[in-house]
Amino acid sequence: MGVVVSLNETRKSNGISALTELCADGMNSVNELILSKAGSDVEMIPEVARHLISSGGKRLRPMLTLAAADLCGYKGDGDVKLATSVEFMHTATLLHDDVVDESDRRRSKPTARMIWGNQASVLVGDFLLGQAFKMMVEVGSMEALDVLSTAASIIAEGEVMQLAAAKNLGTTEDEYLAVINAKTAALFSAAAEVGPIIAGSAKDERAALKSYGTNLGLAFQLVDDVLDYGGNAKDLGKNVGDDFREGKITLPVLLAYRRGNDEERTFWRESLEGDNNTDERLEHARALMSKHGALADTITRAKHFGAIARDALGPFKDSKMKNAMLDVVDFCISRVN
Amino acid sequence: MGVVVSLNETRKSNGISALTELCADGMNSVNELILSKAGSDVEMIPEVARHLISSGGKRLRPMLTLAAADLCGYKGDGDVKLATSVEFMHTATLLHDDVVDESDRRRSKPTARMIWGNQASVLVGDFLLGQAFKMMVEVGSMEALDVLSTAASIIAEGEVMQLAAAKNLGTTEDEYLAVINAKTAALFSAAAEVGPIIAGSAKDERAALKSYGTNLGLAFQLVDDVLDYGGNAKDLGKNVGDDFREGKITLPVLLAYRRGNDEERTFWRESLEGDNNTDERLEHARALMSKHGALADTITRAKHFGAIARDALGPFKDSKMKNAMLDVVDFCISRVN
Repeated sequence: MGVVVSLNETRKSNGISALTELCADGMNSVNELILSKAGSDVEMIPEVARHLISSGGKRLRPMLTLAAADLCGYKGDGDVKLATSVEFMHTATLLHDDVVDESDRRRSKPTARMIWGNQASVLVGDFLLGQAFKMMVEVGSMEALDVLSTAASIIAEGEVMQLAAAKNLGTTEDEYLAVINAKTAALFSAAAEVGPIIAGSAKDERAALKSYGTNLGLAFQLVDDVLDYGGNAKDLGKNVGDDFREGKITLPVLLAYRRGNDEERTFWRESLEGDNNTDERLEHARALMSKHGALADTITRAKHFGAIARDALGPFKDSKMKNAMLDVVDFCISRVN
Repeated sequence: MGVVVSLNETRKSNGISALTELCADGMNSVNELILSKAGSDVEMIPEVARHLISSGGKRLRPMLTLAAADLCGYKGDGDVKLATSVEFMHTATLLHDDVVDESDRRRSKPTARMIWGNQASVLVGDFLLGQAFKMMVEVGSMEALDVLSTAASIIAEGEVMQLAAAKNLGTTEDEYLAVINAKTAALFSAAAEVGPIIAGSAKDERAALKSYGTNLGLAFQLVDDVLDYGGNAKDLGKNVGDDFREGKITLPVLLAYRRGNDEERTFWRESLEGDNNTDERLEHARALMSKHGALADTITRAKHFGAIARDALGPFKDSKMKNAMLDVVDFCISRVN
């Protein structure tokens, strides 16, 4: 791919491993709570939930909640419940997304809708969303409820926005950013913001962690867009070319389109129809992106947001957790190497 | 159909009109709030929302919230917000149901999914659900949030249950009741229960209104099941035969199946496949139901629950609102005439 990321950091990064280690106890509790709250006498519900939960995500979002709460000195079990709520909201979104995108595979495994059908995917998603809100109510923080329910609205709004913009190559970079801000960054942001909320932290800390989450989410999504056209995506369990085959507009496509000549733009327009996107066409798409530096520049954009995320944590005093959270920014960007 | 309902009441019933009149002011505010909260810069969202909202439902559920709050002497604007939340939850469920059931028409109009696609239906439903929770947060009652988020989980669980039982003629009446308790009665119940909650009423009043809502919902759904096989369903904007064409199990089907002979059971089994349910077969189904009194007995069951709903309101002192709420029970049952 010719994409190299220089981390531009003096501090050595541990990737995601330091965060995983620091959050290990909390995440064990989250995992237990997930299994218990995804339980139901209706057999299909725990089956679908287990399928998704065992499919090996990094659980970055719930870790953000645990980490942010810890960074703000929170002692209690509300963070575990909110982290689980966040993961359920994310899982519900994945279930609904797969239906909306008609996806066959996620992380190299068949999607829930391929096994249990679109119907179960829609409904189990709804169930998990309901359970998420029930857990938030248990925690009892109206502010956390406000932040997470607002995120739920924004995420859905972002998905509709993406649907509406789906086949429009005239989408500007700003418009695309608004989409990923809603569909990805909003949940990262809320996940991080509820930490200081339940810790009763000052306004500034809350704003800082919200900003950290938002910008980390933007960086994460942009790198995800790049991974769909190559990198070491296979190791990450992503199917290279999914976005292309579905004719999905992402920043690399928009950049290549804007920088292309008439012939290339015709290619992109045809590709967005998405019904004949063969491996050969994927190769051609990658070549055009390479020619115009579309992937490298998408990563440059991601690094921009990553830098904002890092600076957002500046005022917090040094700690293992703070360093781990800084490392995660590097991780989100450097997984493209 | 040969189905006649004797109301078995000494009091003259005004149907739903008294409730509609008493709730008129509140419902005007609900309608304004619906339009404002379904607003979005993403054009498709208000379009889809308007389509559903203008499609002429009775708005029974939000009226229940207003009525229950009024009955408990509530003064404030929280009832309007919660009523709107309830209507949004209901609308989200309809959007998702139409996708799950692959329905083409609702109330004689094309469903949202037929106009904007399954994708928009799933996502706009998610958006409305998010907005519903945001409004609940605005009201600020953790108990109301608890009741409504629990209902959201139960509704989805009930839909999955129905999906799992979809083609099983061995479903017992009890199992079927559990399904409609979850998919219909839970929201009626929550809609009525949040009234006394925000009014700060005593535990008994809360329990009474919860019971009223639950049993009204059960009666409502059973009559709905009957209407699908005839009655004056056309006037109500229902498509007669939808359930049959989709091979959906409802109580009239279960009763006819249980009471039928081998040949009839073969007919029902074939009908549940749902891919060849012609008008002739629908006529035959109606004849079998008539032969076995399946529709009349479903209405008898509905009246049983209606009676419980009425008695639940017993302890409240007489008022126009109480009478209107009693009338609604009659309305829900007698619309089959």
